Amino acid sequence: MAPAEVEWLEGGVTAVPGILAGGVAAGIKPSGKKDLALIYSSTPARAAVMFTSNQVKGAPVLVSMEHARGGQAQAIVASSGCANVCTGERGISDAREMTRLVGELLRIPATHVLVASTGVIGVPLPMDKVRAALPKLAKSLSPQGGRAAAEAILTTDAKPKEAALRLEIDGRAVTIGGIAKGVGMIEPHLATMFCFAATDAVVAPAALTAVVRRTVDRSFNRITVDADQSTSDTVAVLANGLAENRPLERGRGLPQFAAGLEALMQRLARALVADGEGATKLVAIAVRGATSRRDALRAARSVANSPLVKTALNGADPNWGRIMMALGKSPARVEQDKVAIAFGGERVVERGLLREGVRLERVREIMGGGEYEITIDLGLGRGEDRVWTCDLSEEYVRINAKYTT
Amino acid sequence: MAPAEVEWLEGGVTAVPGILAGGVAAGIKPSGKKDLALIYSSTPARAAVMFTSNQVKGAPVLVSMEHARGGQAQAIVASSGCANVCTGERGISDAREMTRLVGELLRIPATHVLVASTGVIGVPLPMDKVRAALPKLAKSLSPQGGRAAAEAILTTDAKPKEAALRLEIDGRAVTIGGIAKGVGMIEPHLATMFCFAATDAVVAPAALTAVVRRTVDRSFNRITVDADQSTSDTVAVLANGLAENRPLERGRGLPQFAAGLEALMQRLARALVADGEGATKLVAIAVRGATSRRDALRAARSVANSPLVKTALNGADPNWGRIMMALGKSPARVEQDKVAIAFGGERVVERGLLREGVRLERVREIMGGGEYEITIDLGLGRGEDRVWTCDLSEEYVRINAKYTT
Repeated sequence: MAPAEVEWLEGGVTAVPGILAGGVAAGIKPSGKKDLALIYSSTPARAAVMFTSNQVKGAPVLVSMEHARGGQAQAIVASSGCANVCTGERGISDAREMTRLVGELLRIPATHVLVASTGVIGVPLPMDKVRAALPKLAKSLSPQGGRAAAEAILTTDAKPKEAALRLEIDGRAVTIGGIAKGVGMIEPHLATMFCFAATDAVVAPAALTAVVRRTVDRSFNRITVDADQSTSDTVAVLANGLAENRPLERGRGLPQFAAGLEALMQRLARALVADGEGATKLVAIAVRGATSRRDALRAARSVANSPLVKTALNGADPNWGRIMMALGKSPARVEQDKVAIAFGGERVVERGLLREGVRLERVREIMGGGEYEITIDLGLGRGEDRVWTCDLSEEYVRINAKYTT
Repeated sequence: MAPAEVEWLEGGVTAVPGILAGGVAAGIKPSGKKDLALIYSSTPARAAVMFTSNQVKGAPVLVSMEHARGGQAQAIVASSGCANVCTGERGISDAREMTRLVGELLRIPATHVLVASTGVIGVPLPMDKVRAALPKLAKSLSPQGGRAAAEAILTTDAKPKEAALRLEIDGRAVTIGGIAKGVGMIEPHLATMFCFAATDAVVAPAALTAVVRRTVDRSFNRITVDADQSTSDTVAVLANGLAENRPLERGRGLPQFAAGLEALMQRLARALVADGEGATKLVAIAVRGATSRRDALRAARSVANSPLVKTALNGADPNWGRIMMALGKSPARVEQDKVAIAFGGERVVERGLLREGVRLERVREIMGGGEYEITIDLGLGRGEDRVWTCDLSEEYVRINAKYTT
């Protein structure tokens, strides 16, 4: 739930006091677009960072995992166009060098710099270009630079994703802002993307980590584009404390902060799905009536990841039988004659059968829109959960058939 | 392993002595193509039947499960164009009626008739058309009718699939023949398709069931088109005993028979993948060096089902990083710096890195072909397994975006 008092702001991550950002074109992307981003907190910040659970991890992930251990970070440097994954010792040393160079430019310890890279796997970073661009990148830092940074982390994304909000906690204004990127290899364990967020709130260290973990689980871990899981996912939240509120802890402002962070991350997560590779629809799959929350999530994921369901979403085809199929193949307990399914407000399936009098032309109309919800009631218990997915289009195949070449 | 002495025959399922088959157009498919198939054993036969493990099961599956319990069957009636799934009581009674009518026409008990339907989910069978066509179907039965039956069970399949072979066991010739269909909702638990096979071998009842189960596991359960699992899968093997061999049992001819059945089912299974919806490539994903066979299978499936791997196969793009990604996200144990990957004969990855001197133009050439193998060595143990997959093409999306409309 988003707290009622949230005020959405412009400015993305740099809407947060004390946060500067910038983005430049280093020449990593052949297109000449921006490909190197930097986020900098003018004061030291607490950092809560989460990484991909893929067993194959990129060199930047491995280096950032080391640096995140201390719980402190003041800068995040990120490149796009080359993921620096499966690049061996050289990849590790390149990622390390990036943090060292940024540390020197910003006069902070290299261990307070996080590094992230996204793009093609198996190709080393063109470090000469990165080295040449870093001084320019440091100079580009500004309190208006959030958008440039958001642009510089994109790969096949069509649009930059940023969001910021202000909320009041204990009579004090607190700001949270962030940027994110998708949009291929998007699967829900941890959400296979980047999200770099910052806040000026003072948050107790253990509380920050716990809130970020739970919020990621309710936002980025609830989306899917293609069920593939990146080797580079990184979510980092910096809290620089400039709001000078009393430290947020359990029972003292933390629920409000958590709700604000959840509103921000859900907005970014939904933007990732809406901008999924080739996607034309953003569809929420809401499951209730499951025997447990876990089962509700399993059922929702099975539907959200089914290629046959996703192609039907693409064709705006009310092929509810494929939803029944996807429910039945999931590990969740399903009894076919108890299932009800609605598209938008229109009930299509009752007790596992096509509802008499269903207005299929109304369903086609709903499916013709860009965003809607499919509600599934398993009729077994009280478990519920929700996943956001997109359609599978010919464009997805076109984008991915020849990505490296 | 296929025994060396297998002789491949023409004629599909009707290559087996005593097996008649036929197929007619009943008008279930709007295209006017054949859509009703019948297989008949002129003598009572033992039957080993396996069904989908999807929790949502079609009415014909439920009825055939009942009939299969007795271990005897003499006929299989199958329709295409309408799956008779999620059709409630009416669906059950329609499926039952089909077995009853076929039983009357062939003068055998209805309980010795198996029924199977494939096509759209959620729509009742046009029983008036089925009733009208069944006498014509029974008349069409002939020892040359295997191909007509193979045609009458197709949905989005481009080609009929049939195979037959003869092998010698204990100095006696034994024939095995079968037909199959795919080609959407193809996922490996039990293989989401139809395969109707027959043999004239005398096989001990328990042995037949065990051999069919193991063979399905090594053939249809090792293929994937889209990771979706049908609600209608049925594999039935009839053994009519006309070869009059001494009953095959453990230690008495059974291994040869099992090898013959495996050769037949693997050939049909590979034909299903090659004819997968929109597929242009048949690719074997062979994993070895896993800590267990189970892990090898998990790793192979993760690669075989990854949309990003499958689009790269479509584009003949040697994007090995996506294979590393798919291995890393699998539940199998993977250590990235021990992984080796080869396309055809060409080693591309060694110790998790691009091999120096790799000829990528050679790899593109291999990937340009219609059929090849990707070999993955996890470098951890002795577990190995293999899965057959196909590419994901724009055509797959086109076929599936508007299937019901």
